Amino acid sequence: MNRQVLLASRPVGIAQAHDFVIVTHALTALKAGEIRIANRYLSVEPAMRGWIADLGNYSTPVPLGGVMRSLAVGEIVESADPDWAVGALVTGWFGWQQFATVTADAIMRKVDQTGLPASLALGVLGINGVTVLLGLTLVGEPKSGDTVVVSTAAGSVGSAVGQIARILGCRTVGITGGPIKVAQCKDQFGYDHAFDYKTDGLVAALDAACPEGVNVYFDNTAGMISDAVYPCLAQGARVVICGTASISQWDPWPNGPRVERHLLVKRARMQGFVIFDHLDRWDSAVSTLAGWIREGKLHYAEDILDGLDACPDALAGIYRGENLGKRIIRL
Amino acid sequence: MNRQVLLASRPVGIAQAHDFVIVTHALTALKAGEIRIANRYLSVEPAMRGWIADLGNYSTPVPLGGVMRSLAVGEIVESADPDWAVGALVTGWFGWQQFATVTADAIMRKVDQTGLPASLALGVLGINGVTVLLGLTLVGEPKSGDTVVVSTAAGSVGSAVGQIARILGCRTVGITGGPIKVAQCKDQFGYDHAFDYKTDGLVAALDAACPEGVNVYFDNTAGMISDAVYPCLAQGARVVICGTASISQWDPWPNGPRVERHLLVKRARMQGFVIFDHLDRWDSAVSTLAGWIREGKLHYAEDILDGLDACPDALAGIYRGENLGKRIIRL
Repeated sequence: MNRQVLLASRPVGIAQAHDFVIVTHALTALKAGEIRIANRYLSVEPAMRGWIADLGNYSTPVPLGGVMRSLAVGEIVESADPDWAVGALVTGWFGWQQFATVTADAIMRKVDQTGLPASLALGVLGINGVTVLLGLTLVGEPKSGDTVVVSTAAGSVGSAVGQIARILGCRTVGITGGPIKVAQCKDQFGYDHAFDYKTDGLVAALDAACPEGVNVYFDNTAGMISDAVYPCLAQGARVVICGTASISQWDPWPNGPRVERHLLVKRARMQGFVIFDHLDRWDSAVSTLAGWIREGKLHYAEDILDGLDACPDALAGIYRGENLGKRIIRL
Repeated sequence: MNRQVLLASRPVGIAQAHDFVIVTHALTALKAGEIRIANRYLSVEPAMRGWIADLGNYSTPVPLGGVMRSLAVGEIVESADPDWAVGALVTGWFGWQQFATVTADAIMRKVDQTGLPASLALGVLGINGVTVLLGLTLVGEPKSGDTVVVSTAAGSVGSAVGQIARILGCRTVGITGGPIKVAQCKDQFGYDHAFDYKTDGLVAALDAACPEGVNVYFDNTAGMISDAVYPCLAQGARVVICGTASISQWDPWPNGPRVERHLLVKRARMQGFVIFDHLDRWDSAVSTLAGWIREGKLHYAEDILDGLDACPDALAGIYRGENLGKRIIRL
């Protein structure tokens, strides 16, 4: 038998638990070329909000009644593809379900047995870490001594931005919500400055932390945090648009302070970054990141929930701000 | 005697005639190192709005009571600098006045006697043309076959964008105001498509002209035209922020539809461009542009007003949309 989490309704705003349904059905025999994977870890990403939205996005929306799209780590338990042997631990697009029956194109890579936990393939050694390393370096172009500001600074993406920017010689400023996450930013992720945008006075805290302006802003939120950062951009600043987590709906389309004058006066740049355009650099990025983890330079936090029943509410929980680290479902 | 146009008051919004005053005073003897230039042509630029504004900008504001800053073309009529001989025709920062008494650092270059009119040093062979060539190529990065959209398409900057983009193998779409300028775009500047944003239905006309999206948007306006273009950006689009002519005031700061989601979904880029960062490429750009003019590939329009008395209202006139081509004051 297989249990699966299906998308039951097209959510308005952030998907809630009632937008999903869990079903059980019998597994069928594999056809030639198919591979069956027993999932061990399922990923939960803020970007899933976009994957299930109807509106213009960077991937085809998950169909109603379809298994929720997700990255996962699992073990091959049956194979009708001679290139993929039973027993291999792999990561790829296996969805929110106990067993995935896929063809080889759903598999991204084998999870190396390097002594690092397999679940990292969903976080710091997966879409989060690779997004950060490539988005920060290819679009943010940080230079030694630059001030790098990060929104959602304690999250799975943000925490990697802050640490990788430090490894590259930058001063790092983390913006996050709540005292626990501020402490996590300073103690675990080594930010030079971190503050709570809810209580510390966003504009004043930014001014104090960035006396010479912001050279790189790695933006995961848009919204009020971005609106406070734009006026602080330094000449020639680069803004990496990696997510828009603070905007709960794009219909109707929200307004905000116009950005053009900031970009002109500061000769600054804003650019969107989506990791799926850069899959050819994935393996090399994973190997750089794994090296930094082994050297103790790159730390990570995981927020692990147990069992498939945790899936339906897991995405809404991220938008409630409840996770401390990369959210993962362990099966 | 020298007549000068001084900035009399710090304008709210667009400077009007009453924000300037014309004064007359006697010329004094030159000191060592000084050069006296009899101005022949004075420039009028939309960007002057910024040069006289108090708010954050890319140059120190013109002081109240100071001669209005402008580029000009003039002839050296007296010189106490052995490097600059009487009789030379030069362009530089000579201001809105009959005679400029300057030191050599105010002179940008000699105006070559190449058979092309000296006034072009203020337009297509000056700040406008050089801004376009460098802004379009360095930030817009047009590729052959790209669709390039230009706001203020018949203006001195816009008309050069459209033509240079065509020279570089792009499809060009011009957005302008009024039937005369639309005709000028099509007949004189060779746009593949041009339309009147006031009457042609901005969104529908853009969709019709750009069925595969907008690869490069050279933006001189911000405002409603930009807000219509952003949703039409193609994947990987580049937006050159060169001016914000449609925004009459930045205090209070105006709102508009948020751009982050467009940039993310389209992996698009917006970047400000200010020509003063690229003065080292000026001479080479002028020589490329002059070559295209001589080959008949690059056309220009001038809107020439006569006499210093035309200065005070000339900038407001640009914002009223009355000029057909680069506005110049001939003395």
